[in-house]
Amino acid sequence: MNDPASAFNFTTFPGLETAQKLIESAIFYKRSPRYDLQKGRGKRLGCIFLNPSLRTRVSTQVAASNLGMESIVLNMDKEAWALEMEDGAIMNGNTVEHIADAGGVLGSYFDFLAIRSFPTLSDKEADMRDEVISKFISSTGKPVISLESALRHPLQSLADQVTINQNLPTGRKPKVVLTWAPHIKALPHAVANSFAEWTLGMDHDLTITHPEGYELDEEFTQGANIEYDQSKALEGADFVYVKNWSSFKNYGQTPRVIENWMLMESSFGKAKNAKVMHCLPVRRNVVLSDEILDGPRSLVQEQAANRVFAAQAVLSHMLDLSTGQK
Amino acid sequence: MNDPASAFNFTTFPGLETAQKLIESAIFYKRSPRYDLQKGRGKRLGCIFLNPSLRTRVSTQVAASNLGMESIVLNMDKEAWALEMEDGAIMNGNTVEHIADAGGVLGSYFDFLAIRSFPTLSDKEADMRDEVISKFISSTGKPVISLESALRHPLQSLADQVTINQNLPTGRKPKVVLTWAPHIKALPHAVANSFAEWTLGMDHDLTITHPEGYELDEEFTQGANIEYDQSKALEGADFVYVKNWSSFKNYGQTPRVIENWMLMESSFGKAKNAKVMHCLPVRRNVVLSDEILDGPRSLVQEQAANRVFAAQAVLSHMLDLSTGQK
Amino acid sequence: MNDPASAFNFTTFPGLETAQKLIESAIFYKRSPRYDLQKGRGKRLGCIFLNPSLRTRVSTQVAASNLGMESIVLNMDKEAWALEMEDGAIMNGNTVEHIADAGGVLGSYFDFLAIRSFPTLSDKEADMRDEVISKFISSTGKPVISLESALRHPLQSLADQVTINQNLPTGRKPKVVLTWAPHIKALPHAVANSFAEWTLGMDHDLTITHPEGYELDEEFTQGANIEYDQSKALEGADFVYVKNWSSFKNYGQTPRVIENWMLMESSFGKAKNAKVMHCLPVRRNVVLSDEILDGPRSLVQEQAANRVFAAQAVLSHMLDLSTGQK
Repeated sequence: MNDPASAFNFTTFPGLETAQKLIESAIFYKRSPRYDLQKGRGKRLGCIFLNPSLRTRVSTQVAASNLGMESIVLNMDKEAWALEMEDGAIMNGNTVEHIADAGGVLGSYFDFLAIRSFPTLSDKEADMRDEVISKFISSTGKPVISLESALRHPLQSLADQVTINQNLPTGRKPKVVLTWAPHIKALPHAVANSFAEWTLGMDHDLTITHPEGYELDEEFTQGANIEYDQSKALEGADFVYVKNWSSFKNYGQTPRVIENWMLMESSFGKAKNAKVMHCLPVRRNVVLSDEILDGPRSLVQEQAANRVFAAQAVLSHMLDLSTGQK
Repeated sequence: MNDPASAFNFTTFPGLETAQKLIESAIFYKRSPRYDLQKGRGKRLGCIFLNPSLRTRVSTQVAASNLGMESIVLNMDKEAWALEMEDGAIMNGNTVEHIADAGGVLGSYFDFLAIRSFPTLSDKEADMRDEVISKFISSTGKPVISLESALRHPLQSLADQVTINQNLPTGRKPKVVLTWAPHIKALPHAVANSFAEWTLGMDHDLTITHPEGYELDEEFTQGANIEYDQSKALEGADFVYVKNWSSFKNYGQTPRVIENWMLMESSFGKAKNAKVMHCLPVRRNVVLSDEILDGPRSLVQEQAANRVFAAQAVLSHMLDLSTGQK
Repeated sequence: MNDPASAFNFTTFPGLETAQKLIESAIFYKRSPRYDLQKGRGKRLGCIFLNPSLRTRVSTQVAASNLGMESIVLNMDKEAWALEMEDGAIMNGNTVEHIADAGGVLGSYFDFLAIRSFPTLSDKEADMRDEVISKFISSTGKPVISLESALRHPLQSLADQVTINQNLPTGRKPKVVLTWAPHIKALPHAVANSFAEWTLGMDHDLTITHPEGYELDEEFTQGANIEYDQSKALEGADFVYVKNWSSFKNYGQTPRVIENWMLMESSFGKAKNAKVMHCLPVRRNVVLSDEILDGPRSLVQEQAANRVFAAQAVLSHMLDLSTGQK
């Protein structure tokens, strides 16, 4: 009924023109959050969380409220209300409701839906199909916003591009670096995938650096410069996006890394003016050092603050589309 | 202070006249959800969940919002905030608050209260007294709506009757069949009880079919035709309501059933035009086959959508009663 | 950025003059809850719960709504979203986000923040620094309301003082007694600390009675009469506040108490007109007997009802401060 890649959903990079429009809109709302307080009046947004959330949930609710929309949150924890994903399944196990049934019902209660679902990190094929959000979209019949899926986190990426836009060096294309960082757990690829997709989509110069074995899915990185030497990658960087992810090739595994990949102030010898970004939450002194996070390079609080306006720009855009006043 | 059967509570079948009025009101709101957007302005509904909920919670919140009412949800999970039910108890065990104290406090914070509490399925006497909702009602001093109690699920039943009303065969009384279906767990009787109570109350022709040992409480089924042969029961049916429940006699047990009670398309040889209903969530291919759920007989998504308007009709009615403009 | 003791936060007794103003304001709102329905329009309150809550959460949300403010609740359960408290920590353990990062982000999403965090009862020094709320305040940059911290529960205490104010004996200073009561678990000191602090701050006559070994922190009790004999303490009491707490000296321990400290009607031989108070939830017939709770002495439901107006007075006061119209 509804194509995941349709203009009426927000699940992926929407193309340069729309992305630019969304960035401008977010910057406008940052100055005037309540300018469109009547725009979404009478519209209802259902926010479905299959995984926990702090920033994403609150920023989306605040964004909806800034547009006069009502939002209702549903925590459908994977354990408490396990959804069946497989078509034709004989549901005599742990799942209590099929996503197609839940999606249909929620589609009848809301004007817009937003859903968060992390990857399994064990079933690579299901994750690569972006199974949960795809099935949800095809069953709801309403426009859907990704609050992070197995593959992407586009609201985060839009906020990231707003942040980059507001901190651009003058007179030249910025050099953006996405660097892998250490962590104690196996983490999804969604933030890194999306950041690469958007940064390349915005036509910035992108270098990705990570240890051997941590190559991202080429679908997202094509066009980026891959550099295994972190210090080389950082040379002349304007923005350094720090993020851990698990292996894509040895799917969901965390092959041992011997060198120290955590950035310190001393890592920036050849990138004096580089700004540092991270999506939060961050494990301090594991992923990033205190000196960076609390120092003048850090844009992380600004990124988090921009989440509200990114979500607001997207909701506003979807309101336009749904009423045909594109 | 407040009688559970009082007109100011909504916990049971309210009599034919009121039920007809509620059905008409729900159908009206289905066409014009926001017609009464000012009606509940300044009124507050507290929704207390002692058990998890998806449809019931969201549809009630949406209904309240459609009437301009504010709703606040409290998840008082039985484990996290265990309520004491017994009067005179020495509370040196797991319960942290007496329902009489909690009820009194919530009564002072809200204009209307709604509560969900499943049966124990182990303490038959407590369940038959509908202990939790009854004690809650007697302590709050405010009108109470059942969001499903040990014995009944009247908001579901009203939505079911709205669905039947909008799909009636022309020129004759409908034949309604309530059939037991398989499940992997012991389930409450509330949906089945309430469906029987309302269907009989609406003066429809009701046949109930189930395996030996799965007889429902006669308090709810008196006036229905009981037929142990499912295929016979289905003959000439207009509506077939599918639901699992555990044994009432061997309370909460699930005596083994050898025959296959799951409906397939082939089950409808003598009920060509029968519509199939289920309250959701449904375990596909255990309770009901995909071919039925995804085929033209299925009313299940329509039932779920009608939950909003059923709740809206009830809230609107209670607003009328509370302001004396019956 | 923000001093915990600053007038812009509400975490402690605010001084006699402000306290009196807040009590009067609460009594005004009790008569006219929706008088200031426009006052907080466009303002957003974030309510962060690191521990569960019923009365505090709902009464705060209702209070905000009575002032036209929007409130959003975040349950950051200590297990699900464990916050790191230690500065400089290498976060390779169970904590996923540093309170300074979370506080900064939430400060950018909300106009006011409210936070609940119980003491550890094991790390006395951290609790005595009131670590969580103090670090949260210093990172948010927005006014903060305590919804109960390791050391204090000022919204409860304000509601308690409103209750005392509305039940004062005529023509004399009231005698207020705070009595320890039995419980089955080790409980925090916050309610008792705050009640003592406010009662003394309001210049009432306060007697505190408890078994040996249950002395409260003198920071809160200085100026009170300490009496180890409960029956002597009760003589001539106008208000008897009943509460359990664990040992402060043997921090978080519960030294055995042989005598029976649970109040019965027979305990009031020399305090015929004494009113009994408790903050709820109460374990009946462990902390307090049914005969007291359900009898004419009990003010506990009135206290709970006053929670709304206490929170409303505080929010209204903070709105005044934030717009400089003190």
